Amino acid sequence: MKLLGSIEAGGTKFVCSVANFDFEIIKSIQLPTTSPEETLTAVIKFFEKYELTALAVGSFGPIDIQEDSERYGFITSTPKLGWKNTDIVGPLKSALKVPVVWTTDVNSSAYGEKMFGNGQGTHSIVYFTIGTGIGGGSVQGNQFIGGISHAEMGHAIVERHEKDRDFLGVCPFHGNRCLEGLASGPSIKARTGRSGEDLPVDHEVFDLIAYYAGQIAYNTYVNLAPERIIFGGSVLQSIDMTKVRKYFNEFNNGYVQTSDLDDLIQISGVADNGSATFGNFALALEALKK
Amino acid sequence: MKLLGSIEAGGTKFVCSVANFDFEIIKSIQLPTTSPEETLTAVIKFFEKYELTALAVGSFGPIDIQEDSERYGFITSTPKLGWKNTDIVGPLKSALKVPVVWTTDVNSSAYGEKMFGNGQGTHSIVYFTIGTGIGGGSVQGNQFIGGISHAEMGHAIVERHEKDRDFLGVCPFHGNRCLEGLASGPSIKARTGRSGEDLPVDHEVFDLIAYYAGQIAYNTYVNLAPERIIFGGSVLQSIDMTKVRKYFNEFNNGYVQTSDLDDLIQISGVADNGSATFGNFALALEALKK
Repeated sequence: MKLLGSIEAGGTKFVCSVANFDFEIIKSIQLPTTSPEETLTAVIKFFEKYELTALAVGSFGPIDIQEDSERYGFITSTPKLGWKNTDIVGPLKSALKVPVVWTTDVNSSAYGEKMFGNGQGTHSIVYFTIGTGIGGGSVQGNQFIGGISHAEMGHAIVERHEKDRDFLGVCPFHGNRCLEGLASGPSIKARTGRSGEDLPVDHEVFDLIAYYAGQIAYNTYVNLAPERIIFGGSVLQSIDMTKVRKYFNEFNNGYVQTSDLDDLIQISGVADNGSATFGNFALALEALKK
Repeated sequence: MKLLGSIEAGGTKFVCSVANFDFEIIKSIQLPTTSPEETLTAVIKFFEKYELTALAVGSFGPIDIQEDSERYGFITSTPKLGWKNTDIVGPLKSALKVPVVWTTDVNSSAYGEKMFGNGQGTHSIVYFTIGTGIGGGSVQGNQFIGGISHAEMGHAIVERHEKDRDFLGVCPFHGNRCLEGLASGPSIKARTGRSGEDLPVDHEVFDLIAYYAGQIAYNTYVNLAPERIIFGGSVLQSIDMTKVRKYFNEFNNGYVQTSDLDDLIQISGVADNGSATFGNFALALEALKK
C-alpha cells in the first residue's frame, strides 16, 4: 500500500507517522531525540518498512529553507546539544529515495489547520503555538509566508502589561521584551513558582498571557490580515479565548474592521494535537502532485 | 501609442500618470482631492486623452480588496470627509474600459521598490512609509501579503522607549500604543512643537523615531522574514539608517541570523518618490499579461 510520511521533529521527540491517501494514519511512533545519527537511523528504519511515496518534515529550528543554499535541509543555529548544523533532509532523501518537504513545525501545523482544522475553507491563516516556546507559521493561498528564512513570531517585541513591568522575562535572548519571554510556559513558572497546569484557571497570570495573546493576534491582523488566527499549545489549555478576543478589541479600539472575532480567533481544531502531522501528510501529497 | 496608467490616490492629491511599455513617463499630473465626483471626473478626463491599455490604482484606505465583495474597489471606512464608502474602481472601469488593478498606496510602493528600486532581484520585500501617517505593504513572489483585507502595519502595537513613556501619542485610535501614534510626523510636532524638517538632524526626537523604526523592522523580520525592508516617507529624510540598524541589532540581540543589515534595511530607491507610480505601471502591465 502506497503511503505518505510525516515527521514532527521536536527537541525531545520525533513523531513519525504514515498514512494512506485518505489521510488515515496507519502507524505512528515516537522516537526520543538523542544524537542526530541515532535518531535519524531509527527514523529511517521506521519508514523503510513501508511503501513510502513522499515525506514531509516539520522541524524545530532554526532551519535552512533556502533551496539554493548549501545548507538547505539543515537545522542550523539551535542551542540543542549536538544538533547544530545538522543535515536532516540529505540523509532522509538518500535512504528513502522519495520527495521530502522541509518546513518548520509551526508551518506544518498552520497547513494542517488550514486543510483539516479550524482554518478549513480559508484563504490565509496564521497559527501560533504557546507552550515551552512560542512559534508561529503563516499560510496564504498555498504559500508559506517567509522570504529568505522562516518566521520566528515567538520572538516579536511586545508592549508589556502595566502590572508586568517588573517581571524580567525568560527569553535568553530578549528577556522580558519578546512574546516568548513573557507568555511561554516557563514565564508562568518564573512568575508563580508553579507550572500552568497546577494553577487555577482564574489565576491572574493567565490574564497576562491572554493580554499578550490578544496583542500578538492584533499585531498579526494589522501585519498580515489573515482570515483566521489559530492558537494551539499546552499553555492555551488554560486560556479563556473570550479574554484573548477582549484584549484584541482593546488594542484595536475600533480601528480595523474585522469579521466576527469568534471566527477570526480560534483554538486549534485538529484532534489529538495532530495539526502538524496532518499538515505534513497534505504537504507530502502536494509534493507528489508536482 | 498604447500606454499604461497609474493613479496614486491620496487624501490631498491624486497623482495620475501614463507611461509607455518601457516605463517612460509620458505625462503626469496632480489633481486635488476634493469630492469623489469632482476628482474622479477630472481623473477620467485626463486618462481619456490617451490610448490607455491598463490602469493600476494605489489608494489611501482602508479599501475593500475582496474580489467577491459587493464593495470591491471601494474606499471604505475612511475618516476623510465625503469619501467614506466610495466606489473608485467602478467609475474608472466603466469610463475607461480597461483592466484596473486595485491595491493600497503602500502595496504599490512595495511593488515599485521590488521592480525598480532597492528591492530589485529579491523574492520578498516589505515597504514602510513614515510620514503624516505610517503604512506598510509586503510582496512575496508576485503576491501581496494580505488575506481578507490589506495590512495596516502603521497601527501595530510597539513597546515604548523608556524615555518616551509619558508621551501621549497622536493616533486617534491607539494614542501612544501604536507605531503611528509614536513615530509619525505629527508625533514629532506633538513632542517638540516643531515640524521634523525644522529640527536639527541630531535632535533627540529622531533617536526615538529610529528606535521605533528599528523595532518595527525587527518585528517585521521575525514575522515575515523578508529579503528586504525598505523605508520611505518624509520623516525618513531626517533619520540616520545606521541608527535604525543599530536598534534592530539591539532588539534582535543575536537571535535571528540575518544577511548584512546594510542590505536588509534600506531607504527607498526609486527616484523622485516614484515607487508607487512605477509600481502601478508594473502592476498594470502584469494585468495586461493575464
